[in-house]
Amino acid sequence: MKIGFIGLGKMGKAIAGRLVGAGHQVRVWNRSPKPVQELVAKGAEAAAQPADAARADFLVTMLANDDAVRAVVINQGVLDAATPGLIHLNLATVSVALAEEFAELHRKRNLGYVAAPVFGRPEAAAEGKLNIVVAGDSATIERAQPVLSIIGQKTWPVGDRAERANAVKIAGNFMIASAIETMGEAVALTRAHGIDASEFLNILTSTLFAAPIYKLYGAMIASEKYQPAGFAAALGLKDIRLAMAAADAHSVPMPFASTLRDSFMELVATGGAENDWAALAQLAARRAGLDRRG
Amino acid sequence: MKIGFIGLGKMGKAIAGRLVGAGHQVRVWNRSPKPVQELVAKGAEAAAQPADAARADFLVTMLANDDAVRAVVINQGVLDAATPGLIHLNLATVSVALAEEFAELHRKRNLGYVAAPVFGRPEAAAEGKLNIVVAGDSATIERAQPVLSIIGQKTWPVGDRAERANAVKIAGNFMIASAIETMGEAVALTRAHGIDASEFLNILTSTLFAAPIYKLYGAMIASEKYQPAGFAAALGLKDIRLAMAAADAHSVPMPFASTLRDSFMELVATGGAENDWAALAQLAARRAGLDRRG
Amino acid sequence: MKIGFIGLGKMGKAIAGRLVGAGHQVRVWNRSPKPVQELVAKGAEAAAQPADAARADFLVTMLANDDAVRAVVINQGVLDAATPGLIHLNLATVSVALAEEFAELHRKRNLGYVAAPVFGRPEAAAEGKLNIVVAGDSATIERAQPVLSIIGQKTWPVGDRAERANAVKIAGNFMIASAIETMGEAVALTRAHGIDASEFLNILTSTLFAAPIYKLYGAMIASEKYQPAGFAAALGLKDIRLAMAAADAHSVPMPFASTLRDSFMELVATGGAENDWAALAQLAARRAGLDRRG
Amino acid sequence: MKIGFIGLGKMGKAIAGRLVGAGHQVRVWNRSPKPVQELVAKGAEAAAQPADAARADFLVTMLANDDAVRAVVINQGVLDAATPGLIHLNLATVSVALAEEFAELHRKRNLGYVAAPVFGRPEAAAEGKLNIVVAGDSATIERAQPVLSIIGQKTWPVGDRAERANAVKIAGNFMIASAIETMGEAVALTRAHGIDASEFLNILTSTLFAAPIYKLYGAMIASEKYQPAGFAAALGLKDIRLAMAAADAHSVPMPFASTLRDSFMELVATGGAENDWAALAQLAARRAGLDRRG
Repeated sequence: MKIGFIGLGKMGKAIAGRLVGAGHQVRVWNRSPKPVQELVAKGAEAAAQPADAARADFLVTMLANDDAVRAVVINQGVLDAATPGLIHLNLATVSVALAEEFAELHRKRNLGYVAAPVFGRPEAAAEGKLNIVVAGDSATIERAQPVLSIIGQKTWPVGDRAERANAVKIAGNFMIASAIETMGEAVALTRAHGIDASEFLNILTSTLFAAPIYKLYGAMIASEKYQPAGFAAALGLKDIRLAMAAADAHSVPMPFASTLRDSFMELVATGGAENDWAALAQLAARRAGLDRRG
Repeated sequence: MKIGFIGLGKMGKAIAGRLVGAGHQVRVWNRSPKPVQELVAKGAEAAAQPADAARADFLVTMLANDDAVRAVVINQGVLDAATPGLIHLNLATVSVALAEEFAELHRKRNLGYVAAPVFGRPEAAAEGKLNIVVAGDSATIERAQPVLSIIGQKTWPVGDRAERANAVKIAGNFMIASAIETMGEAVALTRAHGIDASEFLNILTSTLFAAPIYKLYGAMIASEKYQPAGFAAALGLKDIRLAMAAADAHSVPMPFASTLRDSFMELVATGGAENDWAALAQLAARRAGLDRRG
Repeated sequence: MKIGFIGLGKMGKAIAGRLVGAGHQVRVWNRSPKPVQELVAKGAEAAAQPADAARADFLVTMLANDDAVRAVVINQGVLDAATPGLIHLNLATVSVALAEEFAELHRKRNLGYVAAPVFGRPEAAAEGKLNIVVAGDSATIERAQPVLSIIGQKTWPVGDRAERANAVKIAGNFMIASAIETMGEAVALTRAHGIDASEFLNILTSTLFAAPIYKLYGAMIASEKYQPAGFAAALGLKDIRLAMAAADAHSVPMPFASTLRDSFMELVATGGAENDWAALAQLAARRAGLDRRG
Repeated sequence: MKIGFIGLGKMGKAIAGRLVGAGHQVRVWNRSPKPVQELVAKGAEAAAQPADAARADFLVTMLANDDAVRAVVINQGVLDAATPGLIHLNLATVSVALAEEFAELHRKRNLGYVAAPVFGRPEAAAEGKLNIVVAGDSATIERAQPVLSIIGQKTWPVGDRAERANAVKIAGNFMIASAIETMGEAVALTRAHGIDASEFLNILTSTLFAAPIYKLYGAMIASEKYQPAGFAAALGLKDIRLAMAAADAHSVPMPFASTLRDSFMELVATGGAENDWAALAQLAARRAGLDRRG
């Protein structure tokens, strides 16, 4: 199959690599040239313009945020250049509002649109172990399944309205941030009582909280290493803003999300924008003066 | 071995039952007589007074809170009546302050004291599947291991200062409450966007959040059944107060804990004290007016 | 002088009435016709289109929010129709971002622009007792002073960048909402201890808090009458959103603002959008179950 | 009249000085001797023991907190030594719980008890300008009025249950802390937009917020001087704890109070315990990175 691919950040590069590896004809575009060259070395073709990626059976996009999606896909005529019958899989974490708008733009052009945000970090992407939440027309999703199966270990359909997949993704990211903050506060409390973070977290993440997210971020918090960032605090702030915008649209009070927003802003305002978002735990320790207590 | 056991609530009854079942000579005391009769029917002996339970090799106590511990163990002369060499295993979730005071009371009388709060609900207790966090003199803990092994699937030592086990337990319960609130807010957000709670929670608790706590409370939240309570909101409030008192002692700001305290108080003040503490999710839905939207 | 006036809500109608009363030639436009007729009866002239109001020495606009400003002033060609040398006084509470954009739109057309948001309710507007925060070119402000003096009792200049006036207005409205919430919580606490709201508030607002805002909203809270709304909860939510957007732009954590946002959303989501924003106090009482305690 | 006076901190010394100045026979006791000597130089008599101060018509106590009241008044037999018919005026900010207990202790001994917490700082105390909230038996209060009139400019009765006066005082102090935090956040927001704190606060405290508390703390925030403390952050934390304990007793959620508690703890944990509690504003600025922006 012919697949166009736009957006070769850490996640995008890993995913596009899998599609190439599976033997598909993949045409890639990225703002900066380096990852394009890497993919071409593996057998992909370089697209001169974003619109060139849309001359395909499938278009897969993995862009950083709403602004990037607007700048590349909408403003550079990608949809207008699309091969009739194209199915667009949008893997990015974008706003609920943009998902609605996007679905409509495809509908008008008779193109397929599947909102397909993913859970998982780059290592999982490289192994095809992502979890993909999908929403859109069910026949379209069925046709896209062969592509989705290369990308993820499982596809989770949540209905035909595209924005629902984004709402699930946004709510899921809120849950991750919330788990980090929770561990951060719990560790600050127990450290103040003389208990090592690793000792405390080992107990909880081996028992009640034996879940991938708690193990992953628990280890990061115990080691107090927030560089290099797997997912930066600035992106955490972006995602909490998405949650709050989605909540705003339906007047859903979310006090934990509000607290997370303030804490991410504090991280960003005090020089920590590029630390991993797990640095919420560092902030919790700093507020308790634990860095001063030796 | 001779074991005295004080406190036959849901948890205590299940644990005492296991000790009897393991062939030990167990003398039980409880404020109300009914669970005593049940244990006697299984082979236990009834203690006329709390102090009678202390004439043993081990004393196991599982009382509801600080006040109950003071009223029964301290004010009724239990420690003064103890057989020399007695080891006291205190399974209750009590304050850090009481743990310190209690350790000192035993030290003065040359009695062994092991703070041994447990994670797990009554069904786990009945099967010996609890996780026990222990703190105290290491030789004492070693001598108590045969008893601990009947009660729990694993013992997690956290040092020799008794209050550390309580700090871990308190921090762990804060983490559970926090996980509930997090799911509650995420479900309110996604429900407002048309996604079923069970659908949403199934995705998250099958993947990133595939942990016992999330599965247990996720199921309860999806079913919207908060009666009968496994652990009541009023107890949740008690435990958050313990967390905040422990935080106060060392000036540890915990914004999530503060939010949880306010929400548990709202549940209690608006007629929900006896609902399961998972009703935090019901409160999140109510705040978003989801009960009015049909 | 010739003055165009757009936006005859409660505030706008009162202000335009003063300008007419002061003998100026005032041409008014409003989306709905009724207030236009009222002003015409007092001596104003009706503008057929918004753009007609810009054929004047001054254009005064008092629209509800960013969307209304965009829909009327930007999208209906008002600025393009302006008489050369026109000075535009924008009294509305709009976002910092719109203020920046607006200043630029005027600069390009060589029109004067003064951001001039006001503090005060309609009664104060009718008496010319508003406080006006102004920002813009100082010579322009000086030329506008005769008009400003009819509208307000005092003009408070805050520099030449238009958006600063809006930031001050937004921060001021945050402070009012915060004062209401504070009284609401304090009254809930003291009522729970048996003290009448009016008794409590009388002490505080006669002494430490003897300020207009506390007296005004204290009286409303004591009487528990939130209808008819002087300023609705839905508008309070809008203004807190403006504060949070302004805070977002510079990563300023504002925990009180976050709490207010959640509470206003709860009011709106539970049927109270049209109550006065002082109903924050009603919410505080409801959370404490005071409505159930009789 | 014979008046015993216990507790010569900044406030107590000023108040006792007024009673001496009014010609009464005042016998003073304080933990440290220096303020006793100062009062003796003005005409007071030194009490050898706290109990000696109770051999009088009136006993006035102004101690720092619950612990000090317990240590001095209860544990040193002051009430047992009291002259029959003595009326005790307790000016301190103590817990609602202690107020209830104290009222009962006096009732049993047939002594008069008036809870009489005061609003105002030491300078106001020296001029007799305090506002006194009183609760207790109305005939007793009437008999105490001549003494109260020397201390304060006005007496505000709130009923016969002593603890009500303390609830009002505690709620009032919460309102002050809340006003400080509000100004701190508003100033952080406007400073980030280029507006001087003094400029912003001058507008608001000259208009809507023209109240003594806003002017006093607004000036402190604008000057960014938090030393020497008129009222230290550590005392602010103490008072918020009193508010939260009073709220706990009746399950009153107070989200602003929760936020204030976390912020005061952060101030205390990060080295600011001895700064004025207005340093909440410094914390708001620090969270926004304003100290790094120059």
